[in-house]
Amino acid sequence: ASKKLQAQRWRERATAADKQVQNKKSEISAIKTKQTMPRPVLLIHGGAGDIGDSRVAGKFKGIKDALRAAWPQLAAGKSNAMDAVETAVRSMELDEAFNAGYGACLNTAGEVELEASFMEGHELRAGCITLLRDIMHPITVARRLLEQRRHVFLGGEAALKLALSTCSEQLAPGSLVTPSAQQALAEFKQQQAKGADTTYARTELDALRTDPSGDTVGAVALDMQGLIAVGTSTGGITGKWPGRIGDTPVLGSGTYADNLMGGVSTTGHGETLMRYNLAQRILAAMQHQQLSAQAAAEQECQRMTARLGGTGGAIVVDPQGELGISFTSRRMAWGYVSDGVIHYGINQQEMLQEPFDLA
Amino acid sequence: ASKKLQAQRWRERATAADKQVQNKKSEISAIKTKQTMPRPVLLIHGGAGDIGDSRVAGKFKGIKDALRAAWPQLAAGKSNAMDAVETAVRSMELDEAFNAGYGACLNTAGEVELEASFMEGHELRAGCITLLRDIMHPITVARRLLEQRRHVFLGGEAALKLALSTCSEQLAPGSLVTPSAQQALAEFKQQQAKGADTTYARTELDALRTDPSGDTVGAVALDMQGLIAVGTSTGGITGKWPGRIGDTPVLGSGTYADNLMGGVSTTGHGETLMRYNLAQRILAAMQHQQLSAQAAAEQECQRMTARLGGTGGAIVVDPQGELGISFTSRRMAWGYVSDGVIHYGINQQEMLQEPFDLA
Repeated sequence: ASKKLQAQRWRERATAADKQVQNKKSEISAIKTKQTMPRPVLLIHGGAGDIGDSRVAGKFKGIKDALRAAWPQLAAGKSNAMDAVETAVRSMELDEAFNAGYGACLNTAGEVELEASFMEGHELRAGCITLLRDIMHPITVARRLLEQRRHVFLGGEAALKLALSTCSEQLAPGSLVTPSAQQALAEFKQQQAKGADTTYARTELDALRTDPSGDTVGAVALDMQGLIAVGTSTGGITGKWPGRIGDTPVLGSGTYADNLMGGVSTTGHGETLMRYNLAQRILAAMQHQQLSAQAAAEQECQRMTARLGGTGGAIVVDPQGELGISFTSRRMAWGYVSDGVIHYGINQQEMLQEPFDLA
Repeated sequence: ASKKLQAQRWRERATAADKQVQNKKSEISAIKTKQTMPRPVLLIHGGAGDIGDSRVAGKFKGIKDALRAAWPQLAAGKSNAMDAVETAVRSMELDEAFNAGYGACLNTAGEVELEASFMEGHELRAGCITLLRDIMHPITVARRLLEQRRHVFLGGEAALKLALSTCSEQLAPGSLVTPSAQQALAEFKQQQAKGADTTYARTELDALRTDPSGDTVGAVALDMQGLIAVGTSTGGITGKWPGRIGDTPVLGSGTYADNLMGGVSTTGHGETLMRYNLAQRILAAMQHQQLSAQAAAEQECQRMTARLGGTGGAIVVDPQGELGISFTSRRMAWGYVSDGVIHYGINQQEMLQEPFDLA
C-alpha cells in the first residue's frame, strides 16, 4: 500500500510540474498563433556534409519527391504525423541520391549496414534498428518495433528477424550497393593509404569528388492533433568498421520526439552527434531557455562543433509548429511546404522557393 | 577563408556562452566549497529493481568490495576518475550478485549478451559496446574504444573483435551463465506462459523470488583534476530477445559525462530509460534549472515513472562533487566513501554507515 501511495505522490508531483510547463507553453502558443488551430508541418532533411556540386540537383529532386509523396495527405488531415514521416523517409530510402536504403554508404568490407529510428511524442514510444542488412526500408522496421511496445532497440540478426516477421522482403546480398557508393569507398581507402586524416570519414574531406557520408535522411512532422513524430534512416559513413553503430538509432542523439518539447532529426558526423547528444540538447535549450526552435538549433549545432570539431545539422519542429533548420557542415539538404510553396535549400543562408505541385 | 571565419565566429560565440556557464558554476562552487580544492568522489550503484531480501547482503558486499578496490587510489590522487570507474565496475562484473559480466541476465535463448559504456567529461570521448558475448569485462572494452577515438559505438562481432585485439580473453561459451540467472529465466518463462504482464521483464514482478533484472552496475567519479568519468555495464533484462539493446550503451540514457554539467549512470527498465533520455534530462535540469544533483535526480526519475510507467534510478555527481542518488524502483543498491566512512543503502530513504576499512 505504501508503494502505491508513493507512486500516487510521484504522479501528482510530476503532473503538477508538467502542467506548469504546459501552461507556459500554452500561453506562448496563444500569443504566437493568436488562438488559431495547429497547422500540420512536415520538415525533412537529406543529409549534411561536404556535398559535391554535382550531387545538388539529385538531392533537390529527392527532397521534392519525398514532400510530394507525404505532404498532401498530412495537409488534408488524411494521414497523421507518423504516416507522413514514414512516407517521406521511405521515398528517400528508395532514392540513390541519399545515404539510406538504396545508395547507402559502404563499410570497409564493402557492405551496407543500415540503421533507423522512429519516435512519437505523445507516449514517447520508439523503435530503433541497427546493423540491418538487405532490407529496403529500415524506417518501416523501426515503426513496427515501436508498435510492438516490447523492446525499443534491436541489432543485427534480431532486426532482420523482426523485418521478415513484419512483411519486409529480404533482398539479395548487394542489392543496396550502388556504383557511386563503391567509388566513394575506393576513394576513402586511397586517402587512408596516403595517411590522410579520415577521422570524420567522408563528411569533410574537401578533396574528394563524391561524398555520400553523413547524407542520412530524416523527417519531423506535427499533425492537426498535435502529435509530433520523427524518423531518421542512414547507411552510416563510408569506410566505417563493420559493426559500427552511429547516432541515427540513438534516441536523444539522432532522433527525439516529445509533444511537450518538440521533435528533432539530426545528420552529420555520427560519433560527434552521439557524444554531444545533439537532439536532446536542442530540446533542452527550447524547454529551459525558452529559445525558439531556430535559435536552439543554431546554438547547439555551433557549440557542438566548437567543442568537438565534428560537424552536423538538425531539423526541429516545436509543439506550435515553428521550425528550426541549422547546420555547421558545409551543406545540408532540407525542405518543407507552406501555403502552397515549397521551401528548400542546401547552402548556408539559402532558401529557395517555388510553387508546390504534384507533377 | 570564409569557412574558416565562420568556424572562428562559432568558436568565439560558443566559448563566450560556455564561459558564462563556467563562471556561474565557479561562483556557486566558491560559495559551496569555500575555496577548498575539489575533493575526489566515487559513487557507484549495483542496479535498481524489485530486489529480493535474500539478495541484499550480496549486493552490500559487492558494493563494499568495489569501493575497496577503487577508492583508496582515487582518494590519494594515485588514480584518475577513469581508472576509478573502470576498477569499480570490473569488481562488480566479476561478482555474481550483479547483472553484469559473470551473473548477467539471460535472453530467451539462455545466452548472455553484454553491454557497457564509458565516457569522460573533458573532451566528451566515449566508448559504447553492445551484443558482446563471452568477455569478462565489457567496461574495459568500452574504455579501449574510447581511447581509440575513431568510433563510439560497436555491436556484436565488431565488439568481440575489438575485445580480442585489445587483450581481452574470449571465454568458453556459457562461462558467464550462473544457476541463479538460469532460475530467473525459467521463472520468467513460467510467468509468460501463464499470461502475466512481462512488459517490465523482471524489474517489478513481486511474485518472483529472485530478480537479477535491471541490476546493472555503474560508477561516477570526479578526480582532483576536475575530470568526471562515468561507466555502466549490464546483461540487460531476463527474457530479452536475442539482439535487444538497452539503455546502458546509449549515451544520454544509460551514461553521460560532461565536466561542465556533471556525470550520470542509470539503471532500471532499459526501454523506459532510453525513451526518457534519463541521464541527459537530469543534467539539463541541473544546468538550466540550477537544481542540485539530488533534486534533479529526484525530479527526473519521478517524472519518468509518472509519464511512462517503468521505473529506474540514477547516481549523479556535479562538477563540485555534490552527489545525487534517486530511484523509483523498490530498491537500488548504491555506495560511496566520505571522510573515512562508507555510506550505502538499498531501500528508499535509507543510508547505512560504517567505518571504511580495506579488510
